[in-house]
Amino acid sequence: MNLDNIRIVLVNTSHPGNIGGVARAMKNMGLSRLYLVEPRQFPDEQANWRAASAGDVLDGAVVTSTVEEAISDCQFVVGTSARERRIPWPLLDPRQCAQRMATASGQEQVAVLFGREDRGLTNDELKLCNLHLNVPTAESYSSLNLAMAVQIVCYELRMLEAQAQLPVSEDEQWDTPFATMDNMERFYTHLEQTLVDVEFLDPAAPRQLMSRLRRLYGRVRLDEMELNIMRGILTETQKWVSRGRKAGN
Amino acid sequence: MNLDNIRIVLVNTSHPGNIGGVARAMKNMGLSRLYLVEPRQFPDEQANWRAASAGDVLDGAVVTSTVEEAISDCQFVVGTSARERRIPWPLLDPRQCAQRMATASGQEQVAVLFGREDRGLTNDELKLCNLHLNVPTAESYSSLNLAMAVQIVCYELRMLEAQAQLPVSEDEQWDTPFATMDNMERFYTHLEQTLVDVEFLDPAAPRQLMSRLRRLYGRVRLDEMELNIMRGILTETQKWVSRGRKAGN
Repeated sequence: MNLDNIRIVLVNTSHPGNIGGVARAMKNMGLSRLYLVEPRQFPDEQANWRAASAGDVLDGAVVTSTVEEAISDCQFVVGTSARERRIPWPLLDPRQCAQRMATASGQEQVAVLFGREDRGLTNDELKLCNLHLNVPTAESYSSLNLAMAVQIVCYELRMLEAQAQLPVSEDEQWDTPFATMDNMERFYTHLEQTLVDVEFLDPAAPRQLMSRLRRLYGRVRLDEMELNIMRGILTETQKWVSRGRKAGN
Repeated sequence: MNLDNIRIVLVNTSHPGNIGGVARAMKNMGLSRLYLVEPRQFPDEQANWRAASAGDVLDGAVVTSTVEEAISDCQFVVGTSARERRIPWPLLDPRQCAQRMATASGQEQVAVLFGREDRGLTNDELKLCNLHLNVPTAESYSSLNLAMAVQIVCYELRMLEAQAQLPVSEDEQWDTPFATMDNMERFYTHLEQTLVDVEFLDPAAPRQLMSRLRRLYGRVRLDEMELNIMRGILTETQKWVSRGRKAGN
């Protein structure tokens, strides 16, 4: 996978603010190659403002007068599309599509085409594409902002890039080792004794109390530092009980 | 999964245009419940313009003066966060996080907090959360636009809705409702006071103790019965402290 081999192509964009938003979305996700096919207005102050710290992406943007020119050296081209089209074409969601693009980008030049704010890509433009991509939306309002659509596609590419380095679960990135079962058993013994001491637990009628507490602390998996905190609290509590008892209570 | 049980909470948003962009992103993905904690300017023309056909989401937005107010009836709260934080908290990517939210949303009220454009959420706000969410970004430019971050999270929820089949998790089959944030805050107050009473916590040098305990109980998500057990233990403990003190120590 090579994000430098994936270009974003915006076709006939009306609002320069969207171009800026696209530039920022790309850079946030590690993409840098922007192509603009006949933008209505570019360069533009509004584009610069929305790009924030992605001005370099705007500066490097390639402006062309046709779609064909923007994709002429590409081996793999994806076109974004609404769901219903007269001519059926392979239509994937952004996740499936990102996988295809990522694979191709290892060796090939890849382009993703995004159409006009109001009308998307024409049928002729869509026919230039190997695949069509559709972002799932709510039926009640399916018209995505252009920069948002680019953000989603770039995000899916980023997720693929990141997955290689990501921890599989939240537990893997924990800073402190989780407690061993041995230490947990010592904790439960200490906890039970303390609950008896404070007379919250009646040994003659323990009911489900310890089961519930075991379930709770088993569910969370205490780390060693948390375990030490809990044991410290129990020890202090027991001291107060023995002071209270000495008082002849 | 019920998207109507998932609210987006924007904290101290500076630019009204972002609020509009968020409203549109939400509606495109099928979400409708927007909460605004002390927005700098709202309602606003720029917000309406960026919202396009999502004016109804803006009209229905609930404005509050504190984060606590916006989440008080929620059982599951997610906070968006940059990757590096001093106290590590369970940190998931948007995909993993959306699965957790989707599952919870079947029965519970769920909130996702998004912070200020320039500074995100404060550490205190992050500590109110059960989980933290981090959108993966390129190292060279990690500062996402606010509405883009909301778009990505809502998109992941939409993808799950589209996939129809949710992963089964242990939370789905839970027998007792999970505690609300209001009740959790009462518990933390009670816990802190008790730890001061038993002299385990020195109010003059509290260090990270309460943070660590909040992280622990936020991670596990106490159900209402467990919460009652914990409060009962604290109450009994406090009685012993006061007996001990009467004994003149």
